Amino acid sequence: MTTSSFDDKDIELIRKKIRNIPDFPKKGIIFKDITPVLQDPMTLVLTSKLLMQPFLEQNVDLVAGIESRGFIFGTRMAADLAAGFIPVRKPNKLPSDKISVEYELEYGMDQLEMHSDAIKKGDRVVIHDDLMATGGSARAASELITSLGGVVIGYSFVLELTFLNGKSKLETGIPVHSLLEI
Amino acid sequence: MTTSSFDDKDIELIRKKIRNIPDFPKKGIIFKDITPVLQDPMTLVLTSKLLMQPFLEQNVDLVAGIESRGFIFGTRMAADLAAGFIPVRKPNKLPSDKISVEYELEYGMDQLEMHSDAIKKGDRVVIHDDLMATGGSARAASELITSLGGVVIGYSFVLELTFLNGKSKLETGIPVHSLLEI
Repeated sequence: MTTSSFDDKDIELIRKKIRNIPDFPKKGIIFKDITPVLQDPMTLVLTSKLLMQPFLEQNVDLVAGIESRGFIFGTRMAADLAAGFIPVRKPNKLPSDKISVEYELEYGMDQLEMHSDAIKKGDRVVIHDDLMATGGSARAASELITSLGGVVIGYSFVLELTFLNGKSKLETGIPVHSLLEI
Repeated sequence: MTTSSFDDKDIELIRKKIRNIPDFPKKGIIFKDITPVLQDPMTLVLTSKLLMQPFLEQNVDLVAGIESRGFIFGTRMAADLAAGFIPVRKPNKLPSDKISVEYELEYGMDQLEMHSDAIKKGDRVVIHDDLMATGGSARAASELITSLGGVVIGYSFVLELTFLNGKSKLETGIPVHSLLEI
């Protein structure tokens, strides 16, 4: 799946609003800042619409958004698809019974959690985040969903840093829909 | 402003989905968990609709959502109101030039940040979070917005813990719209 599945003019409007911030969060990294996309009502609505598009005929039961920027478009995607929303959270944020998974960062490990009753067996789930870098957190979300009996039917990102090859971490056969590839 | 400005039957549907979690995040506190509201497509859409309602005729330019649960409905409110969305974030998360404000917690201090170019002078801004407890973070968001020349035209919460009297921290004359009061 490449950006060609979306209208090039629409994508260009969004791309123009993404801001490069050099040396954030640390020297040598160019941070892709989506806040100008959010700030403009036109690109905010357009991005929501495009993110939802690939999943319109897919009988989505739930959208899982990864904390915290995955909450931004995740809820809207869910509501627009008549699906529910599940927050996938960092450790010790979710209050009820939950399951955890560890995943590798560039240096060290991190952890994601989900409520144990967030998913019913067979639920069709889309995983959403604003950015896919190495794919570690997306893969971790998928493991949480699968371990509860859910079926991951697709991944959705605003931005994919293709040079990090995050797709190689994800299961083959599950489509990855990224609005923009860099 | 009380819950009576919303339809009681609608409010009851949402209230039933809010789950009490005793002793979270620490002993003696009953945590109000909204994840079941999000998980059900019906209450997800209904909550979004009701949150937006008081601001429909208010020419809202921006909705400011407080990290991280304020991102959940904030983006959707913004898009539905044809407004932009600004994330109000915890320290060291925003990548570009920014302003900060400190505020008091029950024990100690915390800090919120906003991009310096998030607001144009005169922008009409709604502040949204899922929960108002002591009102400290909402007030801090208001200070950030005002210092950039924005005009706070209202506060929006899914839940307000009225016994903590958070309203007393907020400016008089700015309406507070809470779907549910506890």
